[in-house]
This record gives sequence, C-alpha cells and structure tokens, in this order.
Amino acid sequence: MKETSDQSQPAGPDAVSFAPRNSIEQVEEQAELAPKFDADGLITCVTTDADSGEVLMLGYMNKEALEKTIVTGEAYYWSRSRQVLWHKGATSGLVQRVVEMRIDDDQDAVWLRVKVAGSGASCHVGYLSCFYRQVPLGAGRVNGEALVFVEQHKTFDPADVYGDAPNPTKL
Amino acid sequence: MKETSDQSQPAGPDAVSFAPRNSIEQVEEQAELAPKFDADGLITCVTTDADSGEVLMLGYMNKEALEKTIVTGEAYYWSRSRQVLWHKGATSGLVQRVVEMRIDDDQDAVWLRVKVAGSGASCHVGYLSCFYRQVPLGAGRVNGEALVFVEQHKTFDPADVYGDAPNPTKL
Repeated sequence: MKETSDQSQPAGPDAVSFAPRNSIEQVEEQAELAPKFDADGLITCVTTDADSGEVLMLGYMNKEALEKTIVTGEAYYWSRSRQVLWHKGATSGLVQRVVEMRIDDDQDAVWLRVKVAGSGASCHVGYLSCFYRQVPLGAGRVNGEALVFVEQHKTFDPADVYGDAPNPTKL
Repeated sequence: MKETSDQSQPAGPDAVSFAPRNSIEQVEEQAELAPKFDADGLITCVTTDADSGEVLMLGYMNKEALEKTIVTGEAYYWSRSRQVLWHKGATSGLVQRVVEMRIDDDQDAVWLRVKVAGSGASCHVGYLSCFYRQVPLGAGRVNGEALVFVEQHKTFDPADVYGDAPNPTKL
C-alpha cells in the first residue's frame, strides 16, 4: 500500500482523508472524519463481537493502523508493548473482520464490531474476550474483591500459538 | 464515604482492596484485583448498555472513581477535561447503574455493563451513545470518509440540560 501521507500522490482507494479539526461543532455535529490522536499519536479502540456484543478487547491505533483498518476492513492496531504496527491475527490466524466502525463525539475513540476468524478468540491469554473476569460490586462483594472467572475454559493454549514470543502484559 | 486510602481505618464495606502487582501469572490468571493505573493515575473504562450491548462511551477512572463505582454500583469517572471526579448523571440525572463490571487480562481496562436512568442517554451531545456516527470501510467508502449518522435524533437538548457549562470536547 502506498504511503497515504504523501500528499503529492493523487487520492485513491488506499488514501484516507483525515480532516483538520477546526471547531467543536464540526467535530461533534458534522460528517467529517477528523480524528484526534493523543500525545503519543494514538486513538483508543474498543472492539466488540458483532454477534454477541461482548467486548473482546481494548486497543490503540496510530494513524497508519486506522488507515489500514479503514482501507482493508480488517483490524490493525498499534502495539504499545512491542511498539509495532499489529495486524491482529497475523501470528495466531485469529483475524478480525470489521463489520462496522464507529467514532465517538469528540473523535478520540473508535468502536469496531468484528467477526473473528478461526476459534473466535481475541485474547492472548487464550480466552474469547480479554474481559474474562468479573469484579464484584456493592452487595455482591461477599468475598471482597475476589474476581470471578466468567469464561471457564481457554479456547487455545498460548504456548502453542505464540511459542516463546514475549508476553505483552507489563507489570 | 470515608477515605479508603487511610490505612489506619479498619476494612469495611467502603474500603476496596487493590493487590500489588507481583507477577504476570498473578495479574492474568488469578482472582486478585490488581489494577494498573497509567502515568496519569488512570485506568480506561468502556461502558456498554446492559440490554442492547451498544457501546455508550469510553471514559477514564482514577483510583477514587474505581473505588466508588465498586462500592456504590453506580458509574464514577475521572473527567480529564474538567479534572474532577465525575458521578455520571449528577447534572443530567442520567445515572448509570452498573449491572456488571469486568476487568481485562493485564488489568489496565474495565468494562461496565450499565442501565441508564431517565431517557437512557449517555452522550453530552444528546445522543444515546457517544458512538452515533459510522466510519465507512473498504468497498463502502463510496463517499470517501463521510461519516454516516446511525442515530437520527437527539434524545435531549444539551443546552437545556447543561446550560452554559463548558463543552468537554477539546480540539
């Protein structure tokens, strides 16, 4: 794919236009895509299963990841722990096909509704969703803060899929 | 509510225990709540409608907001634009009752499934969801990046609800 940041190239199907952010009214009320990247050049992305509505993961995109997701219809992220562009599923085969992308009011977050290939898992620990544990609330805190596993079984063994690649979780 | 950070107080229903983060195995595989707050002291929060599964908003919590949400079962956030603890709905009446809270693999993000009081809206612009616009993808980019409104009508007029309070959206 050619570099979309090269303004000398004519706009084509691989070029994505991001509008400059001129006013709050433009950003909130109009139809221009004018994303806000933070100080690290990232926008937050929440990804849900298009069928179940389950939140699968929360990730980040830089400009290139957002462009590639828009052009290809498959989810790309920026891996903060590995500091690389990350085509989700490139290693595991668990590619996320994007059914719908939405952007929020101030355009600093996107929501992907996806269908996941293969076993349908999106979590590097082996679960379908990264959110596989419940935090008890209010009167439900009978065992203090002890988390409750809502997924009972992993769908894959991370050692089989990722081998000895470093775990992205940081303390 | 008493200050939960005061370690001289005995643990009670208002005290929330966060475990120290000792190992990746502990954080990912065990039942201890050991949240990771970022350099600004914040954890990311995605909030969905407990019935429809719609993503309503993406927000942030500091330690106090997370504690208050766990103890009260109502959503508290940290407002980054206003730099204050924010009991969602305190101004608008659109309180979010939390049906379920989950935490992700590396414990740096939480997911709230909520029922919203009143009109059910969660977006300061007046829509039910902050994600009221779709970004076209792949072959659907017939009008370039022009966003498509998926909510046709606002549920309330922000001027009626918030008066002349500053708009939280920043350019």
